[in-house]
Amino acid sequence: MPPLRIDALQYANVSPAIFAQWRAARLGVVHATVAYHLSFRAVVDEIVAWNWRFRDHAALIAPIRAAGDIERVAASGRTGVLLGLQNPLAIEDDLGLVAVLHDLGIRVMQLTYNNQSLLGCGWAEAEDSGVTRMGREVIAEMNRLGMVIDLSHAGERTALEAIARSARPVAVTHATPAAWKPGGRQVSERLMRALAERGGMLGLSLYPLHLADGPATTLAAFCAMAARAAEVMGVARLGIGSDLCQDRPDEAVQWMREGRWMRPDPAAPRPRFPEQPDWFRDSRGFDALERGLREVGFSEDECGMILGGNWQRFLCAALEAGA
Amino acid sequence: MPPLRIDALQYANVSPAIFAQWRAARLGVVHATVAYHLSFRAVVDEIVAWNWRFRDHAALIAPIRAAGDIERVAASGRTGVLLGLQNPLAIEDDLGLVAVLHDLGIRVMQLTYNNQSLLGCGWAEAEDSGVTRMGREVIAEMNRLGMVIDLSHAGERTALEAIARSARPVAVTHATPAAWKPGGRQVSERLMRALAERGGMLGLSLYPLHLADGPATTLAAFCAMAARAAEVMGVARLGIGSDLCQDRPDEAVQWMREGRWMRPDPAAPRPRFPEQPDWFRDSRGFDALERGLREVGFSEDECGMILGGNWQRFLCAALEAGA
Repeated sequence: MPPLRIDALQYANVSPAIFAQWRAARLGVVHATVAYHLSFRAVVDEIVAWNWRFRDHAALIAPIRAAGDIERVAASGRTGVLLGLQNPLAIEDDLGLVAVLHDLGIRVMQLTYNNQSLLGCGWAEAEDSGVTRMGREVIAEMNRLGMVIDLSHAGERTALEAIARSARPVAVTHATPAAWKPGGRQVSERLMRALAERGGMLGLSLYPLHLADGPATTLAAFCAMAARAAEVMGVARLGIGSDLCQDRPDEAVQWMREGRWMRPDPAAPRPRFPEQPDWFRDSRGFDALERGLREVGFSEDECGMILGGNWQRFLCAALEAGA
Repeated sequence: MPPLRIDALQYANVSPAIFAQWRAARLGVVHATVAYHLSFRAVVDEIVAWNWRFRDHAALIAPIRAAGDIERVAASGRTGVLLGLQNPLAIEDDLGLVAVLHDLGIRVMQLTYNNQSLLGCGWAEAEDSGVTRMGREVIAEMNRLGMVIDLSHAGERTALEAIARSARPVAVTHATPAAWKPGGRQVSERLMRALAERGGMLGLSLYPLHLADGPATTLAAFCAMAARAAEVMGVARLGIGSDLCQDRPDEAVQWMREGRWMRPDPAAPRPRFPEQPDWFRDSRGFDALERGLREVGFSEDECGMILGGNWQRFLCAALEAGA
């Protein structure tokens, strides 16, 4: 079987139409965000909704819970769905909830989402004091279970410490290099190198705020950035994590940023989702990526690696239990 | 009315026998810890238990919800109970839960309990990056509502930043000076001065691990420490926060320290509650304190201030709404 296409992060408001796009894009696996700012109980509600989807749309999608599911689901002509949390809020202060959420199908968790968490610091705080006491326990537990540590929204120090502390490779599922798009939570070359040295992965994001020229960013510019990232990390450490947020209302942007931890200023303008670049409006943009990557000089094999083969190898190892 | 006696922190497993000790000690107010490591829903359970106690033991205790309750309850010959949380876990990531818990009767909350919280850093983390983004929001909300900010288990930087950020005086309800008992979460003179300069209070703890010679600490040594603390902060900034943990099983020590955020080593010896000094086994030790404080040179008025008058003044101001 040729390497699968894998999208290492989507926050689409999923529907049969979107599942059909996944199939049209020949996506073997999509990592779907289950929650940003939800409590344990509310995350269970979201997992229940996914369980019903897996029953109702069994011809199009299937859950990925173990390494062996990845090829099996793809061979059946369906898209495998890996469930993940962008925020560790759902484990509350309870180490035991990591295994509970793993039992329920969660296979990826971010240690922080923008702000300080009980585990470490997010990129948006003024200062990052690294992985906390509870964070060390949770990293070891995720390693033991085979749950992917995602550092996409972490502060750099927390990310570097998590990479060093984790017994298994970790991921930044969706980001772009800060050298290309300065500011925000984009990743430094130092972090990219540290990730790669420990076998970790970077999923290149297609979210317009992570792109050098926003929605006007060209396919050629994106793929030139990928070529530079491959020079820094090695082509085997790169994948795609589109961060597609299709069919979400604009209120979702404010929710992502402000959750419930602050009261939005009622007089402030409401943030809106930016437009996607015209060559990546939905998952079918993988076809454009394949073309663009070839045009900047990646071989057919390398394109296959970036568009999914690397994530496939990473996930097959990551989902095995026991570090 | 002479100044009340006030104990600014107890974690007793309350019972009619303990309420009788409060009355025998002539305590006008006790700040009772409702929770260390409990979720919002579990805290509501604990509040319900207090609500039943207030009905079942209405001849001995009554809730303190507003400044006016303090003298009124004392004048009725009962002990007023101020409910507090040692950990902000119950507000989850939801700023709105501060007002909800205030409506339910919570009047004191620590920003952190030993470990990193969503609001700031506890003393037991390796490094303290101060008050977080959510912490700033919560401090403003506690100021607005009239909920006392307690920094007893905070890291020093978080405590100093919270003092500076809070529009109202804040408290360390139960601790001793690090100059007297080095290590742990004892308070530096720098922190004591910063507290006092902004009208804050330090409640001197009688928990043996906070005492220079543990359970063997003499009444005279404790009171000499109080005299030194009065030189640093001014006598008007000192009170008592006994940290009495009467009638709790030894398992409570492990729970306080380790909660659910780590898995205790099953082979490790279980921690136990230390013995109290023989002159402070329960609330009636306030009589010994009065004697001891006079013996180190405090006047009768100053004794009245330290044993409750200062907390009374602080709480009357702190419980008013609106900063």
